[in-house]
Amino acid sequence: MKRPQAVTDLVDELKKLPGIGQKTAERLSFFMLRGTTERAEKLAQAIQNVKAKIILCSVCHGITERDPCDICQGPNRDHTQVCVVEEPHDVYVLENMGQYKGVYHVLMGVISPLDGIGPSELTIQQLKEKVEKGGIQEVILATNPNMEGESTAVYISKVLKPYPVKVTRIARGLPIGSDIEYADTVTLLKSLEGRSEML
Amino acid sequence: MKRPQAVTDLVDELKKLPGIGQKTAERLSFFMLRGTTERAEKLAQAIQNVKAKIILCSVCHGITERDPCDICQGPNRDHTQVCVVEEPHDVYVLENMGQYKGVYHVLMGVISPLDGIGPSELTIQQLKEKVEKGGIQEVILATNPNMEGESTAVYISKVLKPYPVKVTRIARGLPIGSDIEYADTVTLLKSLEGRSEML
Repeated sequence: MKRPQAVTDLVDELKKLPGIGQKTAERLSFFMLRGTTERAEKLAQAIQNVKAKIILCSVCHGITERDPCDICQGPNRDHTQVCVVEEPHDVYVLENMGQYKGVYHVLMGVISPLDGIGPSELTIQQLKEKVEKGGIQEVILATNPNMEGESTAVYISKVLKPYPVKVTRIARGLPIGSDIEYADTVTLLKSLEGRSEML
Repeated sequence: MKRPQAVTDLVDELKKLPGIGQKTAERLSFFMLRGTTERAEKLAQAIQNVKAKIILCSVCHGITERDPCDICQGPNRDHTQVCVVEEPHDVYVLENMGQYKGVYHVLMGVISPLDGIGPSELTIQQLKEKVEKGGIQEVILATNPNMEGESTAVYISKVLKPYPVKVTRIARGLPIGSDIEYADTVTLLKSLEGRSEML
């Protein structure tokens, strides 16, 4: 006896999501089956809603409900400072901080030859054109401090070399609340290299 | 700047699923955002479909598209043998095996005082009534071989004690392909206790 087709269909769709395999997809499906119809309906509508309402900002490639996005249109944002991030959600991680007043540029990924993602798959060309147009004083490279993020940062800094713009990289070092004893050597090295004078 | 409401809504709905926290919900949301509308629509419809089409069988409490389910209605199934499982999907795990010809009874969970789930939250009363009605020769307790599953099995075997029905428990032992060297002591003990004569 096979399980009902509707369940198999849902499992198959859930399996297409990242990090969700057969077992997790089955667990989620059966959870939805056991829950109320109202709850499942809410989830289905939230999925449809997000695709209907959310678009990518034509300026920064971040997600938004109107184009250009609220940040790119913001009157109090400093358009001379551009923070380059990998993914749209990185924008909101930085926004949560509440300190950054510049604008963003979302790469839509990171250079990763193993996954077949080269510079042309990202929005690096658009970033270059923005810088070419002028008006930008600083490009802050806030890609992730891992292998792909670091090499993407190096690549972008080389691309922007010919232009009169300051290119900076976010500090890599020991996180607040951590312990030197447990720090890995690469982080410790970066933390030493990036040391600043006590004021 | 806050992220768009539609994204927050989707994250909130995804977070209600088991094993999905804030970070995973955000990751899944942004994955859906980046994917095609068609793909998101398929997932949304699969969720709605599963709630619209799938019901619980009034006989075995398994999931089905018609009541009673195909297994309970099956002409080739042995209705004297009832396999008791925790969750609806356990039925299909056992069905995949292709060997079991009896019917099922889904408990809809397991006795777990820590989660506030007592025997009355499960379908143990319905199982008792089925046995009382007669016609059942064997009840196979196929709850999970963990603390909750074992104690639920013990509880059910006590409930069914007064009735002239054979109550059995699935074998706990070393899985095929495993190595005695790496077996945990409880499994090894169960494997010894459940030893059978070589034929």
